[in-house]
Amino acid sequence: MQWLDYDTENCSIQRTLDIIGEKWSLMVLREAFNGVRRFDAIRNHLGASEAVIAARLRTLVAAGILSATPYKEPGHRTRNEYRLTQKGFDLYPVLISLLQWGDKYEADTAGPPLLVTHRECGEPVLAVIQCAGAHVLDSPRESQVSPGPGAKLRNSVI
Amino acid sequence: MQWLDYDTENCSIQRTLDIIGEKWSLMVLREAFNGVRRFDAIRNHLGASEAVIAARLRTLVAAGILSATPYKEPGHRTRNEYRLTQKGFDLYPVLISLLQWGDKYEADTAGPPLLVTHRECGEPVLAVIQCAGAHVLDSPRESQVSPGPGAKLRNSVI
Repeated sequence: MQWLDYDTENCSIQRTLDIIGEKWSLMVLREAFNGVRRFDAIRNHLGASEAVIAARLRTLVAAGILSATPYKEPGHRTRNEYRLTQKGFDLYPVLISLLQWGDKYEADTAGPPLLVTHRECGEPVLAVIQCAGAHVLDSPRESQVSPGPGAKLRNSVI
Repeated sequence: MQWLDYDTENCSIQRTLDIIGEKWSLMVLREAFNGVRRFDAIRNHLGASEAVIAARLRTLVAAGILSATPYKEPGHRTRNEYRLTQKGFDLYPVLISLLQWGDKYEADTAGPPLLVTHRECGEPVLAVIQCAGAHVLDSPRESQVSPGPGAKLRNSVI
């Protein structure tokens, strides 16, 4: 495949980043994966401004990654709780991959601040690259790329 | 674990994003994983400005994710080629996870533009979440988090 001959406009990595590829969006998702559902708790933990958190939540709800469910506590107005949808849960490998790399290369000398383990057996959770035939890839060099059904040549007339 | 009681300053996801969590950085890395090593080719394929690409390359080299190797063609001044280091290669699960999600949820109706397959057997390459005991996790709910050695309580005096 002559990679440079292809248009990147419809690249799936690019499209994913257009939705979640902003630091605060991924921080909001980290909170969601850790069970934090309410605006005030998210904002308080992240230390970002209300406007930023509200904007990121809106984008994530609009994209179908979080769902907003109203709740009401006595004496307060109705607010929303934010929960991951299946589309949101499917971002788990993204979060675990980022965590794994950061733990390996950017942790303080004390070690990683957070351990993610398999509930059943207690072993650390990992993002593993393997093929549908269950072969683990030890290096990107063991993979190859080819044009998919949605591939578009650059400057081509569609 | 009372997740909200912990400081997120040293979060490994956050630290990773502080280095690569900008769309153009990840686009430069996508090019690198596809074997594109020269400034002009990267810039031409991405369509971003010279200043943006140069800044992202500088950050990635400073972080040890790319290495810069000088090359010289007759009649031109010396330039750099950019290659992934091992630290860079270790970002492969991040890229594959982003690709996989985008392919599933954001591809055109025609289908994904790019297929990544295992060179040896031809099967699609996947990011799989499993534990060190080789149990595949079908849902984030099968994992649990606990404070790691580098965990810091919020507002604590260190």
